[in-house]
Amino acid sequence: MSSPEDSLIAKYFAPLATDAGAFGLTDDAAILNASGDDVVVTADAIVEGVHFLADDPPDTIARKALRVNLSDLAAKGAEPAGFIMTLALREAKDAWLAPFAKALGEDAVHFGCPLLGGDTVSTPGPLSISITAFGRVPEGKMVRRGGAKSGDLVMVTGTIGDATLGLDILKGGEVAKAMANDATGMAALIDRYRVPQPRNALARAVREHAHAAMDVSDGLAGDLAKLCAVSVVSADIRLADVPLSAFAKRLVASGAVGIERLIAGGDDYEVLCAVPQENAGRFMAAAVAAGTTATVIGGFAERIDPPRFLGADGKPVTFRRVSYSHF
Amino acid sequence: MSSPEDSLIAKYFAPLATDAGAFGLTDDAAILNASGDDVVVTADAIVEGVHFLADDPPDTIARKALRVNLSDLAAKGAEPAGFIMTLALREAKDAWLAPFAKALGEDAVHFGCPLLGGDTVSTPGPLSISITAFGRVPEGKMVRRGGAKSGDLVMVTGTIGDATLGLDILKGGEVAKAMANDATGMAALIDRYRVPQPRNALARAVREHAHAAMDVSDGLAGDLAKLCAVSVVSADIRLADVPLSAFAKRLVASGAVGIERLIAGGDDYEVLCAVPQENAGRFMAAAVAAGTTATVIGGFAERIDPPRFLGADGKPVTFRRVSYSHF
Repeated sequence: MSSPEDSLIAKYFAPLATDAGAFGLTDDAAILNASGDDVVVTADAIVEGVHFLADDPPDTIARKALRVNLSDLAAKGAEPAGFIMTLALREAKDAWLAPFAKALGEDAVHFGCPLLGGDTVSTPGPLSISITAFGRVPEGKMVRRGGAKSGDLVMVTGTIGDATLGLDILKGGEVAKAMANDATGMAALIDRYRVPQPRNALARAVREHAHAAMDVSDGLAGDLAKLCAVSVVSADIRLADVPLSAFAKRLVASGAVGIERLIAGGDDYEVLCAVPQENAGRFMAAAVAAGTTATVIGGFAERIDPPRFLGADGKPVTFRRVSYSHF
Repeated sequence: MSSPEDSLIAKYFAPLATDAGAFGLTDDAAILNASGDDVVVTADAIVEGVHFLADDPPDTIARKALRVNLSDLAAKGAEPAGFIMTLALREAKDAWLAPFAKALGEDAVHFGCPLLGGDTVSTPGPLSISITAFGRVPEGKMVRRGGAKSGDLVMVTGTIGDATLGLDILKGGEVAKAMANDATGMAALIDRYRVPQPRNALARAVREHAHAAMDVSDGLAGDLAKLCAVSVVSADIRLADVPLSAFAKRLVASGAVGIERLIAGGDDYEVLCAVPQENAGRFMAAAVAAGTTATVIGGFAERIDPPRFLGADGKPVTFRRVSYSHF
């Protein structure tokens, strides 16, 4: 009596539903057990042709779909608890579903974030994956966007701009031309675009040391502006201090790309946060212990105008476009 | 600095985010407060051309998107707590978004299920709405699919088959021809397809009186088979006892449609449950108090073969297709 849809779920996704609250995906709903913690909920969808490319490998699509959500949990200081996935497919092909489900399962184990349930639907349109992820924080301890105070340091993890360079390479743009002789570099940047490295290992440090935080997904400049607006502060950023990879540094030094491009591009999935000065050292140490870095790029200021980006001469630089928007 | 996407969210959806845990949609995540209850999580997506028609009115699309999820919460015995919505749009048109958001907000208030967050993405493909809804039940009290016992009564709320008749009318099929002179009847059946009536007012009664339950979304016959499989029981259903609307009864009596069509069609969004005999009276009374009915259509039996559907002569009737599947 089992339908093709049920068989697909049983074959590919039930093995990922390792949490008792998922009931092996045989029920209409899942359970997040009662606990003394707050449940943090976040949702991000990725659409073929918009957030990933049609010929991206299925394993990277799976990892990106989950990790863009894990990145939100990390920035909120939450420990992953599980996720719900809605998969809209044109067709159910084993050659695509098998590596997709395998990679999703590996990430679910690696990040301690089991599949709890979802829905699989057919669509005549582009493949899309919509994930709602859950995390837990001690009651009242979620780190919000609002909360940055004048005098706090603006800090960001990892490096900024690599993913947007990787996307340009995949599209055969000017970065591809500038790096034509550097296959290793191109592969590294493409990997940054396809497979985000969410900073979940830093969740506790964010909770303990930051006044406010968000993940950088739509570009550092635009996301900082959002954090400032909600916190009712402004910020001054020293462009020279924005952390760049060796690849990005070379491209900027050669004039192949401008810094504007890197801070306006999206898909970084780093943590941007407001850290009081006395906590900065401990936050940096925690970042190193978590396998990344945390860099001070400026400070929050008691103004309500948009954040300023300061050049080598200390004067504000004006940019054309600072954030990605779908509409 | 606000992007068109942020403006769209602020204009249409922030007013719906009335729960304190939604932070007015200005954060990356929402909070479900710590409580002594279990959190029940369910997800259902609806896709243009698959679950609704491109020219369905936007207010009915909004209601359907939320109500298919509310229906799952009702069947699990859970009280609604909120929902997350991912909206994939081709374009942001006020003429569509304004009535969509208005109806969604009305339903959110009516069912006590506020918008907590989500994601809005552009898509070149069909419009799709993916909702993850949350409910609360006292710890350990979620009503599962598994749990039906031999001797329990098979009960179902409301009437079965109206929505599939409504869809046939919208597609100009044989039902439209058979009902050509009954505009009122056609409108009523179309409404059943477009705007489900989830049985949330019955959630507590389901929790108190049923051993097992699920909502009927993919057809009574197929969904009953799923409930039996997980409960490791079978069932005998008397076809003459399946509750039909006056419209459906007339169509069956005239030979325009067969009962098979009604129990195999989808989109009923009624509650199917296993009720011990001693609770049946109280469950029926609760249904009437909730503005609907609950009907005994058969009994669960200690076998492991698929459920049987018995005709007027008491003999099993064989059907061709018993459930909707996307693949």
